[in-house]
Amino acid sequence: MNKKKIIVVGGGFAGLEATKVLAEEPGVEVTLIDRNNYHTFQPLLYQVATSSLEPAEVCPTLRGVFQSADNVRVLMGEVSSVDPETSTVVLDEERLSYDYLIMAIGGRTTYFGKEDWRERSTGLKELHDALTIRARLLKSFEEAEREPDPEKRKEYLTTVIVGGGPTGVELAGALAELRTHVLKGQYQNFDPAQARIVLIEALPQLLNGFPDELGRYTKGVLEDLGVEVVTEQPVKELERSAVHTADKVYRARNIVWAAGVEGYPMAKELGADTTKKGTVKVCPDLRLSGRNNIFCTGDMAHFETENGKPLPGLAPVAMQQGAHAAQNILRLERGDLTEKFVYNDRGAMAVIGRTHAVANLFGKKPLKGFVAWVAWLFIHLLFLVGYRNKAVVLVRWLWSYIGWRNGARVLNTLYLKNDPLTEHADVDKAVEKELVGSGGRG
Amino acid sequence: MNKKKIIVVGGGFAGLEATKVLAEEPGVEVTLIDRNNYHTFQPLLYQVATSSLEPAEVCPTLRGVFQSADNVRVLMGEVSSVDPETSTVVLDEERLSYDYLIMAIGGRTTYFGKEDWRERSTGLKELHDALTIRARLLKSFEEAEREPDPEKRKEYLTTVIVGGGPTGVELAGALAELRTHVLKGQYQNFDPAQARIVLIEALPQLLNGFPDELGRYTKGVLEDLGVEVVTEQPVKELERSAVHTADKVYRARNIVWAAGVEGYPMAKELGADTTKKGTVKVCPDLRLSGRNNIFCTGDMAHFETENGKPLPGLAPVAMQQGAHAAQNILRLERGDLTEKFVYNDRGAMAVIGRTHAVANLFGKKPLKGFVAWVAWLFIHLLFLVGYRNKAVVLVRWLWSYIGWRNGARVLNTLYLKNDPLTEHADVDKAVEKELVGSGGRG
Repeated sequence: MNKKKIIVVGGGFAGLEATKVLAEEPGVEVTLIDRNNYHTFQPLLYQVATSSLEPAEVCPTLRGVFQSADNVRVLMGEVSSVDPETSTVVLDEERLSYDYLIMAIGGRTTYFGKEDWRERSTGLKELHDALTIRARLLKSFEEAEREPDPEKRKEYLTTVIVGGGPTGVELAGALAELRTHVLKGQYQNFDPAQARIVLIEALPQLLNGFPDELGRYTKGVLEDLGVEVVTEQPVKELERSAVHTADKVYRARNIVWAAGVEGYPMAKELGADTTKKGTVKVCPDLRLSGRNNIFCTGDMAHFETENGKPLPGLAPVAMQQGAHAAQNILRLERGDLTEKFVYNDRGAMAVIGRTHAVANLFGKKPLKGFVAWVAWLFIHLLFLVGYRNKAVVLVRWLWSYIGWRNGARVLNTLYLKNDPLTEHADVDKAVEKELVGSGGRG
Repeated sequence: MNKKKIIVVGGGFAGLEATKVLAEEPGVEVTLIDRNNYHTFQPLLYQVATSSLEPAEVCPTLRGVFQSADNVRVLMGEVSSVDPETSTVVLDEERLSYDYLIMAIGGRTTYFGKEDWRERSTGLKELHDALTIRARLLKSFEEAEREPDPEKRKEYLTTVIVGGGPTGVELAGALAELRTHVLKGQYQNFDPAQARIVLIEALPQLLNGFPDELGRYTKGVLEDLGVEVVTEQPVKELERSAVHTADKVYRARNIVWAAGVEGYPMAKELGADTTKKGTVKVCPDLRLSGRNNIFCTGDMAHFETENGKPLPGLAPVAMQQGAHAAQNILRLERGDLTEKFVYNDRGAMAVIGRTHAVANLFGKKPLKGFVAWVAWLFIHLLFLVGYRNKAVVLVRWLWSYIGWRNGARVLNTLYLKNDPLTEHADVDKAVEKELVGSGGRG
């Protein structure tokens, strides 16, 4: 009896969980394809951006994860198109056929249609983003150290983060600590604690989607950490070194755009209905309408709940959808009907700096402060893939918690090469070299 | 009373030790300059190349090391020239004056005059080298996974290392273990254990400088690990994908040139006598002849011992010379005479794979095997800068020793961008993306 061929496109949270369900199932062969050779644990990417963690710790290899699964094959490559008529995907120049297809390619940072803004800042969705942010940040501190003009120096030392959701909040808190505690005493020309961090949010509250009281609490904690929190101010214009709201212009060398996610253009290849955001509308059982062997999961999918609103682009949603799609395939193979997807909403959390967090865990009253922070740590460690990664991350966290030596300030100037923001000759000169930094004397 | 200004150029072993001696000394101000913002712990670079360790662990920031030294200033930049007449160095466009200068810029990989070979392979002297080796290696395994032609696949799976000194030996052993133990079961199109590793040495013995019996022992261990050891075969020609000896041509996608070190062209700027290797001749007290305030230390210096041979380019030599130069400056400031440098040769070690090593420790009979390996571990951990780094490295080593999951296979394709060896279109297409891998499920 021939095994059924299942192709999973995307090794993010959805694709990973789908493949895990199918691994070792008799009767199926899985090909997992990703353009990278790793899975990105996005919730901790901001710590790579601030040099607390190294890429290796948040990006386990897909081959490593599925090493012992005999029916799983991992391929690194980019799927350029899908042909539902012939049930094939095109991977670079190779055509691969499938019996079932699970699309899980995720989403990319959205600039709400203003595509020329895309090259003027960086997002925080991919590893490359995190390492670029890190490189620019460390480089601008080095520039500030050699800059005699206070106005120019101020621009080097300013970071603007656009987007007050968990990503923006967590990055802002971590940056605040980096400059106040970790980099203290390391520069002579300026006091790192004076580095300016601005968090801009279009809506009235931070952490839209969390209860208002947690949004207010978060604003308070960030302001205590020295972050300028600006709410109800959509960004009107984005330049390479400045962010414009209706009221003000913020000049900054470091601009991070964490304001939202949209579907990749490739999603339209599937020929299904897409939304304005570029996400693909799926049926209650996660299949494409009219395609009984193509499933769509995670950030790329638009899944309407009973109240008419789509599920948010969160990791737990992606994980549950990926697993559910895989289970539906197994049901079909058994001759059963598929089941509709129901999201088990256990809540959401965000951490602010080192000792504060907010948690809106389902069924419980909102948590904040130290207790929430411990819960956040525990849950993220739990879901981080790889026991060795868990051990190393724990060591790094414990160490920095005790010693405030916030880790591995690896400044890789290769990320500045061909960087649209490197207009400065001295930066360009530097881009041939690596900048790496690891935490103090430990 | 004005403090004396001391400039230290180079944050490697020599520059680091010199600055440590001068830190907190009253009456002196130190400016430590390096083109990177970190110190490279070169003895462990090969582990970054094979993905056991991450850059952060072997590259502590210079700012972090000297964070609490009030009289030490760290600047990141490249010194383009030195003017002994005016006692100034030129750093980018800035002129910095000094009372004393300690040059410690190290050396670069030598191609024995064949400069066009430089772009056809990579060395293993800088962090960039290690990450490039890692990227190429992981990428060629991914290519092999998708390559139907066995001859082409063999080329992808071949690594040639030129140079049988400690660097080449240690890399060969680590690569052998990577493919035999760590990557086992992760690929379907080929067996990683079949990946070919060739170590080519021009002299009759590996580890020239160690006793012959240790060289023979090392060859035996490497051959047991499946490495092809080729001795007494100088390289006649180097192509981008092939190494030619007198007898054979080795076709390989991964070529590492670890055959020796020469002085940087910049060393000649000092106007002193240089050797054919580009190293600078120094007086017994490490000063330049005729320059009473310029010292030269480490790999860039040519220090003749009583038997007429120069000291080798080893880390302990650099460390002792750096410290000695600094101490001589302090003697001069006290009105004393300088003292001549005497190298305290405690011996040398090399590790082969995970459980074997050779150690030629002064005053003891040559050690080999497991005992030597424990000693190697201990000494390298001891000298690694940063307690947090020591802790993380120890965790990684213990973990991989127990589990054979040899770590962080971070494949960063950014290192393949503008890579002279990327002749293949599919690799070029990949270079926009990051490849990262961290060890299995731990």
